[in-house]
Amino acid sequence: MICIALDAMGGDLGPAAIIEGAARLSLEEHDIRVLLVGDVPVISECLAALRYNPARLSVVGAEGYVSMDEKPGAALKSKPNCSILTAARLVRDGEAHALVSAGHTGATVLAAATTFERLPGIRRAALASVYPTVQRHGPHRDPFGLILDVGATLGASAEDLVGFAVMGTAYSSVISEIERPRVALLSNGTEPNNGTAEIIAAYKRLSAGSINFCGNVAGLDLPRGTVDVIVCDGFLGNVVLQMLEGVSEVFADLTKEASSKRLQWKIGLTMLSGGLRRMKRMTDWKTYGGAPLLGMDQIVIKAHGRSEARAIRNALKVAAKAVRGDLIGRIRSGLEEQSMALPDASS
Amino acid sequence: MICIALDAMGGDLGPAAIIEGAARLSLEEHDIRVLLVGDVPVISECLAALRYNPARLSVVGAEGYVSMDEKPGAALKSKPNCSILTAARLVRDGEAHALVSAGHTGATVLAAATTFERLPGIRRAALASVYPTVQRHGPHRDPFGLILDVGATLGASAEDLVGFAVMGTAYSSVISEIERPRVALLSNGTEPNNGTAEIIAAYKRLSAGSINFCGNVAGLDLPRGTVDVIVCDGFLGNVVLQMLEGVSEVFADLTKEASSKRLQWKIGLTMLSGGLRRMKRMTDWKTYGGAPLLGMDQIVIKAHGRSEARAIRNALKVAAKAVRGDLIGRIRSGLEEQSMALPDASS
Repeated sequence: MICIALDAMGGDLGPAAIIEGAARLSLEEHDIRVLLVGDVPVISECLAALRYNPARLSVVGAEGYVSMDEKPGAALKSKPNCSILTAARLVRDGEAHALVSAGHTGATVLAAATTFERLPGIRRAALASVYPTVQRHGPHRDPFGLILDVGATLGASAEDLVGFAVMGTAYSSVISEIERPRVALLSNGTEPNNGTAEIIAAYKRLSAGSINFCGNVAGLDLPRGTVDVIVCDGFLGNVVLQMLEGVSEVFADLTKEASSKRLQWKIGLTMLSGGLRRMKRMTDWKTYGGAPLLGMDQIVIKAHGRSEARAIRNALKVAAKAVRGDLIGRIRSGLEEQSMALPDASS
Repeated sequence: MICIALDAMGGDLGPAAIIEGAARLSLEEHDIRVLLVGDVPVISECLAALRYNPARLSVVGAEGYVSMDEKPGAALKSKPNCSILTAARLVRDGEAHALVSAGHTGATVLAAATTFERLPGIRRAALASVYPTVQRHGPHRDPFGLILDVGATLGASAEDLVGFAVMGTAYSSVISEIERPRVALLSNGTEPNNGTAEIIAAYKRLSAGSINFCGNVAGLDLPRGTVDVIVCDGFLGNVVLQMLEGVSEVFADLTKEASSKRLQWKIGLTMLSGGLRRMKRMTDWKTYGGAPLLGMDQIVIKAHGRSEARAIRNALKVAAKAVRGDLIGRIRSGLEEQSMALPDASS
């Protein structure tokens, strides 16, 4: 039985949506148990209104939670037994195999960083995210690529970028079941000498390493989905991901506007529904599942703040798949292989 | 009479498209004369097949040109009288008021950098580009925002970013006729302390300056078009612009695919044509007009490599508008105002 600690309090839609996601999963999956961590009366009240399998859901009490507008450092300090810290400790102490949260991203990253250990060879954790692409990826033909770091930290050294590439490879092979994920650095051109000093140095190291490195890709390749894993620093990744979110939002708004304005357009949209499905996917990918925080010795999945029950259920399933596929072990051995491929790691 | 030196040889579509653009303009505008710079027999042959006003088109001979796959430095050195260098010299020597080129971007930037002077206070030139937005801008309700630098140089200091903000303001007010363009820095969040050290320092300086600074914007704000001018370093701007180009391309491909696959989808698309027009605009904006190279003491407009005749005509009109509106003078006085607003510019 895989056990997952879920922060039941965070998220823009409140505890009800989160608890409903866990309740739904409890009726489906046979090897996942979820610990709902948070305010016991609140969780109990939500559960009373839901169908669920009590053998696969437990409640663990916590004192308070970090709300979306709090500063993570101060909030965690003033609430040492809040839901995200309590959930992280359950994982650290071996009572759960993975942590899932739809709450405050900064607080989740900080709680993980202070409760877990960084993996040897990793100086910075990275937040990864899927994003929609035209090309399909892997045996399940996923319409998503993976990009990291999308904002766990601001900059990244060459060594950090190499670490991100190794972690992205492990995640993509465990979750998307891609045997040798194609990995590239995001730069302003595809030549080995395009980009910042950090990117150029990372290019050299990755070319000599053990992962399936395909060189640099440019901004054009993001929507195309040329590779399976795109590596960049957290500042660039954050801007790029937010821009994709903005484009999705604009597309959704224009479609809605078009269908509300004229009957003819509404009919047109209906006739197009099949053809538009691939484009429409762009509008709901952010809440599709979860984004992993990679670099710690424990599995952490950050679900989007606006996650509804279905997205929480997906994030829990992703976390369980990461446990089953030994994501942490895969990252550890990837890091070892990469450092062995480079005899002089300090060069 | 405004005189514009046009590199007639560059561009992916060859001289014919470029010369056709100039020929069309010669029949329309009454105060623009274009100097077609390049291989005289080639230009004459193209002109022979076109209608044009000979009073508004002249041919200036040059020896060779830089093709798209050449290294700019080596090419300009080995061809000192090539079309782009000859055209730039015509502007430097006062025989033309502005330079327009659809040729090799790197060669255009380098030819300008070596032939013209940098404006006082500007350490780095910037390439600016329009991009499609949902919100309209200025009195003509332009569906475009301006972003700079999109790749003239790699990084940017705080001082460089302030210079870009001043130059973007001047360009936007001259070309889009926006009285006080709203300017923002592109960052990973909207707080004054979000972003790299350079962005945080630029934020402080711009807050104290004379331009209409609106703070930081995030990736989400690009497609929304929250502000008129977005400022960032050349690396970030290049990735972002290429990504927008990729999204446009994907949209165009999916629409084409949808309409070719099924009659029902084709009819759906036809019924939607009005509603889709705003989205479709996303697919052809790159060849709409020209991108200015800002920071030199002369006006330089870089048209897209894939520019057809209409785009060349638009780029020539933009160049003439920049001359009429005294773009260079506006940038000079903007830089003076900005430095006066900061008593200690070295802080």
